Amino acid sequence: MTTRERRGLLIVNTGDGKGKTTAALGILLRAWGRGMKVQVFQFIKQTTGNWGEVRALKKMEIPVTTMGGGFTWLSKDLDRDADLARACWSEAAREILEGESEIVLLDEFTYPMHFGWVSVDEVLDVLRRRPEHRHVIITGRNAPPALVEAADLVTEMTKQKHPYDNNIGAQPGIEF
Amino acid sequence: MTTRERRGLLIVNTGDGKGKTTAALGILLRAWGRGMKVQVFQFIKQTTGNWGEVRALKKMEIPVTTMGGGFTWLSKDLDRDADLARACWSEAAREILEGESEIVLLDEFTYPMHFGWVSVDEVLDVLRRRPEHRHVIITGRNAPPALVEAADLVTEMTKQKHPYDNNIGAQPGIEF
Repeated sequence: MTTRERRGLLIVNTGDGKGKTTAALGILLRAWGRGMKVQVFQFIKQTTGNWGEVRALKKMEIPVTTMGGGFTWLSKDLDRDADLARACWSEAAREILEGESEIVLLDEFTYPMHFGWVSVDEVLDVLRRRPEHRHVIITGRNAPPALVEAADLVTEMTKQKHPYDNNIGAQPGIEF
Repeated sequence: MTTRERRGLLIVNTGDGKGKTTAALGILLRAWGRGMKVQVFQFIKQTTGNWGEVRALKKMEIPVTTMGGGFTWLSKDLDRDADLARACWSEAAREILEGESEIVLLDEFTYPMHFGWVSVDEVLDVLRRRPEHRHVIITGRNAPPALVEAADLVTEMTKQKHPYDNNIGAQPGIEF
């Protein structure tokens, strides 16, 4: 028997395939359709980015905090990335504990944990102490095992076939 | 070397995990953020449904054609489902061949093919003849092998852990 209780879920989208952030955006779209209050924290990606999702979230009036000095493998200043990620997590933690969002998306947040910039134990402690109806979604590869263990819903995106395999570049609107 | 050419992709989101439709909605969100023209055809689901995504797509002014007599396993009239699915495919095919959408989403469209209601060969023929910049996204379990073969990008969503396993019901805004 499945109960009908409302309960905040911890959702993790991980794996090497496409669609982790994309699936999280789809959840936000549904929730926004229902008039729910949502908030996004983007880790790692460029602060100067003008991605399709950033434009869409702006049009939808969904608050987005975008931080990080770009993807790490493009960055020459790792310490700065770590500091920015910690600052972003600090803001996110406050929203998760004390904010009004029904859903908080921590996009690409597995990387700061994987790189050791943000402590997994601290993250799990904040998640455990959050209000019981608050949903939290975390995306990215290399989800820490303890996070997966704590999650209610874990989906692994597995790459089956990708256009890069056939030398086709990323398409605007589809992948960014 | 990856080329920068613009090319319409055939994207298939399949597998037994959550997130197939959700990831497709995320792509639409990105594209909508860029001002691209998109259109949705929903197969199988209730015509009377008022899902979070339907409400959101309406707010975003994205055209949606919703057909089908509800999920098949709830239906008592299989022939009617087949007829509705064929009618929906017929409209979708016209849009794919002659319409103006940059992205066409055929949501849950693997089922009509899997059940033999719509011919996979006919679908592949329409996809081959479409304008070269048109993206098509198809979601659902049991994607026919020939469709997977023809696709540019295939993601399989694999269930790792699901709240139903712990007797937690579906949450509005998250799953529907």
